[in-house]
Amino acid sequence: MQHFLSVKDADSVESLLAQAQYCKKNPFADQALGKGKRLGCLFLNPSMRTRLSTQIAAQQLGMEAIVFNVSAEGWSMEFEEGAIMNGTTVEHVKDAAPILGQYFDILAVRTFPGLQDRATDYAEKILNQFVKYAGIPVMSLESATRHPLQSLADLLTIQEEIISHPANFSTRKPRIVLSWAPHIKPLPQCVANSFAEWVTHWGQAEFIITHPPGMELDQTFTKGAQIMHDQQSALAGADFVYVKNWSGVQQYGKMAEGNTHSWMLTPEHLANTNQAKVMHCLPVRRNIELSDQVLDSTVSLVNKQAGNRVWAAQAVLKNLLQQHG
Amino acid sequence: MQHFLSVKDADSVESLLAQAQYCKKNPFADQALGKGKRLGCLFLNPSMRTRLSTQIAAQQLGMEAIVFNVSAEGWSMEFEEGAIMNGTTVEHVKDAAPILGQYFDILAVRTFPGLQDRATDYAEKILNQFVKYAGIPVMSLESATRHPLQSLADLLTIQEEIISHPANFSTRKPRIVLSWAPHIKPLPQCVANSFAEWVTHWGQAEFIITHPPGMELDQTFTKGAQIMHDQQSALAGADFVYVKNWSGVQQYGKMAEGNTHSWMLTPEHLANTNQAKVMHCLPVRRNIELSDQVLDSTVSLVNKQAGNRVWAAQAVLKNLLQQHG
Amino acid sequence: MQHFLSVKDADSVESLLAQAQYCKKNPFADQALGKGKRLGCLFLNPSMRTRLSTQIAAQQLGMEAIVFNVSAEGWSMEFEEGAIMNGTTVEHVKDAAPILGQYFDILAVRTFPGLQDRATDYAEKILNQFVKYAGIPVMSLESATRHPLQSLADLLTIQEEIISHPANFSTRKPRIVLSWAPHIKPLPQCVANSFAEWVTHWGQAEFIITHPPGMELDQTFTKGAQIMHDQQSALAGADFVYVKNWSGVQQYGKMAEGNTHSWMLTPEHLANTNQAKVMHCLPVRRNIELSDQVLDSTVSLVNKQAGNRVWAAQAVLKNLLQQHG
Repeated sequence: MQHFLSVKDADSVESLLAQAQYCKKNPFADQALGKGKRLGCLFLNPSMRTRLSTQIAAQQLGMEAIVFNVSAEGWSMEFEEGAIMNGTTVEHVKDAAPILGQYFDILAVRTFPGLQDRATDYAEKILNQFVKYAGIPVMSLESATRHPLQSLADLLTIQEEIISHPANFSTRKPRIVLSWAPHIKPLPQCVANSFAEWVTHWGQAEFIITHPPGMELDQTFTKGAQIMHDQQSALAGADFVYVKNWSGVQQYGKMAEGNTHSWMLTPEHLANTNQAKVMHCLPVRRNIELSDQVLDSTVSLVNKQAGNRVWAAQAVLKNLLQQHG
Repeated sequence: MQHFLSVKDADSVESLLAQAQYCKKNPFADQALGKGKRLGCLFLNPSMRTRLSTQIAAQQLGMEAIVFNVSAEGWSMEFEEGAIMNGTTVEHVKDAAPILGQYFDILAVRTFPGLQDRATDYAEKILNQFVKYAGIPVMSLESATRHPLQSLADLLTIQEEIISHPANFSTRKPRIVLSWAPHIKPLPQCVANSFAEWVTHWGQAEFIITHPPGMELDQTFTKGAQIMHDQQSALAGADFVYVKNWSGVQQYGKMAEGNTHSWMLTPEHLANTNQAKVMHCLPVRRNIELSDQVLDSTVSLVNKQAGNRVWAAQAVLKNLLQQHG
Repeated sequence: MQHFLSVKDADSVESLLAQAQYCKKNPFADQALGKGKRLGCLFLNPSMRTRLSTQIAAQQLGMEAIVFNVSAEGWSMEFEEGAIMNGTTVEHVKDAAPILGQYFDILAVRTFPGLQDRATDYAEKILNQFVKYAGIPVMSLESATRHPLQSLADLLTIQEEIISHPANFSTRKPRIVLSWAPHIKPLPQCVANSFAEWVTHWGQAEFIITHPPGMELDQTFTKGAQIMHDQQSALAGADFVYVKNWSGVQQYGKMAEGNTHSWMLTPEHLANTNQAKVMHCLPVRRNIELSDQVLDSTVSLVNKQAGNRVWAAQAVLKNLLQQHG
């Protein structure tokens, strides 16, 4: 693993899942691997779970993790090649990244899409410039189009459920439904894109995406998934329902038109599922995306997903350390 | 000790004071106790002394301490049960707390009262939801109505003075006066409430509270104290004067009426005391609450109090680690 | 070394450079020296390189480094003696500094000049109050008039170039030119002041400062340097060109008058140099101070300078630890 930017950086999804499971059982087994190594965690956008889980994973591997919140700590970065820097940005990524590359052994970066210009976002301009200029392994903590650490933790959670209910899945693959949810503002497509990409690469599931017309995800990510606009039909027989909002990819950054309240997942939506477990990456807008009744019931896996973020990060960091040690 | 939210969580004040003294003499003696354990420090409100002393105490016990400033790092939390989250809050405590409970071994939380609605503040709604949902020991770093780590450090400081002047207190208890001070804005009652609660539970002092009429503290905290509205009479014979502003508890969150400048503690106020030592929790508004002449003289214990914050935090963390190890 | 505030605190520049080189070759050799010691890093102004390099240097010496961003974490400090604190400042340095002195073994402080009142800035009022009240060694992370850690890293970078091209400098001293650069706003004089001060104390170079008329630096710092207003003549034969903006010291905090665009360093400016290497402390406004063509070419030393910040900080910390251990 040279970098960790998407599922394509994993040798195999199965192997990475196995490594995450190993870390979970043996959190401190690889302290020697990270000794004397430093992880720089650069946040261009806010984070709670991602920051904490990554910092914890690094510490468990014996690394020093240093967090730098770009905006809160007073820096504003330039990403345009050839910019005449007479405005508000005080430092170009071409100057900052190589220095972070000298200070750290691995650089973890979080950045969000601007949701204004799809071409810029989908080119992963910001993340790719860190890759280009840092000269060390870069690990995505969510970028303009993807959130691979989240997806790895999500699959780990699904795998644990499958393992603990072997009878259900001895003769068939689990049915996983990614179900669009309402929100109060337009959100990135990252979590949905990555989840689609990871589930299809994993290849161990029947995978359906359901959303209102106009809320299509980019086909780069959804290839291999079945797309349905009728939520009720999509949910029928589901074993896992992943609930998530995203904004338009065609009408870029736009919200769905009309009243979409009925897309909020409630216990009624689960009636025809196969006693489906419900997932969400958090933070969740309660009673907007998902009802309290679902989140507060035993069908919710959201806490397990968040807990598994540590082991996903640790497996990835371990890979990067092993390759670059 | 299951949690540390108030004096009621201490088996005995004397025993906790003895443990703090032990930590002060042997800062690194218990490094093995915290090894591999993590303390999460969640700040919903700003902090300097509390943050630094807690972080240092954790490190001295061998723990990893991770600080998360909720607002500076871009998160806004919801605390209403059943909220339809279509506003500015992005995550419910019901979702955040259990995850912090997975990431950490002990959770330390700072929150301030809103000073708008007394019932909400005095129910300790925010702190109690962390206790309810985190599933791990919670340690208050100041909450809506109390600041127990401050009070423990305060008593430690008083005890040290008593020990170093044994002749003064061989035949009588020290006279401790909590003296209300002016301020430029309405402040919480936390430090005053906790100080009253801890001194009365300790039981080793004659304890007087003096404040202008209308600035009464809640009787839950002041039971066992003598209340006086005449500051001069209250200060007569005092061995320790604890100076602190608080806003109204009846006229909730309101400042005292009229000109209260004469309540600012100056050397003249100390004339009839028993060479009283002067205390304040800091930060202090110089020449508003206390005059420079007092703060810059040898009667001031404020630096000692702040230094003792480390040992108070370390004694409490040690207790929590021992109980939950 | 009691404190590290300026070049005058170094026993000798040569010896400090040798120690920095030693640290660079043996980053973890002195882990025992810092064990159980704490460095407090107090930022009254934002920082990236300085913060990260100092934190890394401390860790490599076995110390615990704790960062506190004064404004981001919600504190506002008072520095006026005798202030009646009825305004926006919540804590006086007289109260904060002694506490930091109890919590830490070494205190590192960053503060910027206000650029309003030269007398206040040039008296180093803020830094000196930390020195006066903290009671522990204080290390400047840049102050109102100086940035000594930057200068030490700069000289280290120059020395490395000299060592790797011995033939060039066997019969003569290197010619170093500090060349004023345009900017979009008035900047402090710190980096220029310190660079002048360190180069002249080092004494191993021919040293020229060039700037538009009116942009003179204070003679306290430039004694021993040749001042030239004609940039082209100054650059002729240069081995090293240090590019940096600063605002007026006479017309205090004012920008240069007229169009100064021609002072921006481009490849054309380097034509008559002795294949000069180009330096800048970063962050740099690209195509305002320096052109892309220079920064992106092999003549640029800016990344090396930034990398050397770690070793400069480590040498200084090591000195302070040795003296105060």
